Amino acid sequence: MYLHESAGNQVAESIIQGFRTRKRAALARAVTLVENGSIHAQDILEETFKHRGRSRVLGITGSPGVGKSTLVDSLITAIREHGNSVGVIAVDPSSPFTGGAILGDRVRVRSRTTDDQVFFRSLASRGHLGGVSRHTGDIITLFDAFGFDYVLVETVGTGQSEVDIMRYAHSVLVVMAPGLGDDIQAIKAGILEIGDVFCVNKADHPDADRAVSVLEAMLELNRDWKWRPPVIKTVASQGKGVVELFGKINMHLEFLEQNNLLEERVSRSHIASLEENIKRETVDRIFARSHSDGTLDRALKQLSEGKTHPAALARQLIQLYLCSEK
Amino acid sequence: MYLHESAGNQVAESIIQGFRTRKRAALARAVTLVENGSIHAQDILEETFKHRGRSRVLGITGSPGVGKSTLVDSLITAIREHGNSVGVIAVDPSSPFTGGAILGDRVRVRSRTTDDQVFFRSLASRGHLGGVSRHTGDIITLFDAFGFDYVLVETVGTGQSEVDIMRYAHSVLVVMAPGLGDDIQAIKAGILEIGDVFCVNKADHPDADRAVSVLEAMLELNRDWKWRPPVIKTVASQGKGVVELFGKINMHLEFLEQNNLLEERVSRSHIASLEENIKRETVDRIFARSHSDGTLDRALKQLSEGKTHPAALARQLIQLYLCSEK
Repeated sequence: MYLHESAGNQVAESIIQGFRTRKRAALARAVTLVENGSIHAQDILEETFKHRGRSRVLGITGSPGVGKSTLVDSLITAIREHGNSVGVIAVDPSSPFTGGAILGDRVRVRSRTTDDQVFFRSLASRGHLGGVSRHTGDIITLFDAFGFDYVLVETVGTGQSEVDIMRYAHSVLVVMAPGLGDDIQAIKAGILEIGDVFCVNKADHPDADRAVSVLEAMLELNRDWKWRPPVIKTVASQGKGVVELFGKINMHLEFLEQNNLLEERVSRSHIASLEENIKRETVDRIFARSHSDGTLDRALKQLSEGKTHPAALARQLIQLYLCSEK
Repeated sequence: MYLHESAGNQVAESIIQGFRTRKRAALARAVTLVENGSIHAQDILEETFKHRGRSRVLGITGSPGVGKSTLVDSLITAIREHGNSVGVIAVDPSSPFTGGAILGDRVRVRSRTTDDQVFFRSLASRGHLGGVSRHTGDIITLFDAFGFDYVLVETVGTGQSEVDIMRYAHSVLVVMAPGLGDDIQAIKAGILEIGDVFCVNKADHPDADRAVSVLEAMLELNRDWKWRPPVIKTVASQGKGVVELFGKINMHLEFLEQNNLLEERVSRSHIASLEENIKRETVDRIFARSHSDGTLDRALKQLSEGKTHPAALARQLIQLYLCSEK
């Protein structure tokens, strides 16, 4: 491993050593450095990238209000009952209004902080719309390299960027709940295609069976399944159905391994990582630099005056900031 | 206007002429060319970009199931009653399962196709997850240049990419409905920050007043409003509250104009257009070319074998595909 010859390499070195000895504080620190865009992050990521591949990464998504956090908590219990370790990444677009993630539904998970085989991290967007997923792939890399048996990545909502985060998962669990208006509507968001296991939570609701039927009917529209996603009913607040759900998730993971399909999923996550890194080195760099040297303001003025148009301007900025300088 | 000296320029030229004489078929064709990434699209976009600025662009967003399409339909009625023209762009992530947008709630809007002052276009993602918003900014440009008094941009869902599309709007309407579990949860998606006018639809529901109170309380957390977003109750299926809602939307648009804030909104949309164009010329180009010449497959193999890592690979691909070739 090549490290820069500087005082900085001690920071990265001590964290990497902490990973080898599975010190939770090292993981926490590494995540913070990555989130802050620290210069030490790159060395840590380079080294930890080589140690990926042991964790089973489970993505969990679904609309607000379906009871995802309660379900995640029950899955953690099931994982621990099997004697496995788990890291949980909650990708939670927080509102600048409240200054942080919605805490009410986080309290229960955080109550497990005394169990050292469970590690929980919430990635807030820190008030930047669009800032949610930039580091998620790298942080999953860190969790995987740290060596958890399972890594759970929980996203809120069913929009495009939440679906993008699911590309990093081996297996994707979609959580729905009856009576929230999102059964038939769910297919609008591309969720039906991305799910490997579906869960109808709050299944004590009178409309639960209907929600399951609608979902099964939607799934039947596609005859080409290699793996036909099962639909499981749960009442996570009472722990019901969770053992069966966990069983189906593991069944899917085994299916991937036995049919040499895991590599496909891993490639998908590599493509996602590559895309994030390319965006960072192109789009982000161009905006940061053109903003700081005043070029962006001048460009916006020209656009307003109709003197140029976005496509031409984009090409000029690419030449200026990506190819002319080193 | 510079056009390529080729037979192709007749395509662009005839469409641009159609814009000048407000032929709907020209707009329809232009949108199709942009969606298909046609070589003629660039000439059309260059020319039409200069003619923007007359339309009031209203973004409309909200979770599935809140009755957005019904509300859009009532807004169209209100707009027409004022003697104004309106173009509607529905950005609707469609599912490959059903082959197109969910049609049930589109029928009512399409029934207005005999009114030539209303133009409706649905932009499907055509089965590509993540493909929804790539052309939205350009298509809004086309609608604006065509000269509608109002352009409505309707998105489904409350995820990040839907919020991104709202950057193209002058004014943003957020539609919510009681009983769907998305009142308190809505702030997780950044929707509270993006809205200029809030609408609680299906207000005949028993929880409607509570939903309004919760929303008002959330909005009160921010004391720094230049414009304090109003919360309006509607029952769009019965046409109730729509006149008041339309009035508040126009009040916001006037507020922007009178306080020289419209320029800020226009700049925001220019930044969004610029970002889309940069992504197209960088991320999209790199993936398309590296995929077609086999480099991407080789790169993925190296990543799987731990011989390189995403950040280093990203830099190499940028050099190879963006800066070395012309």
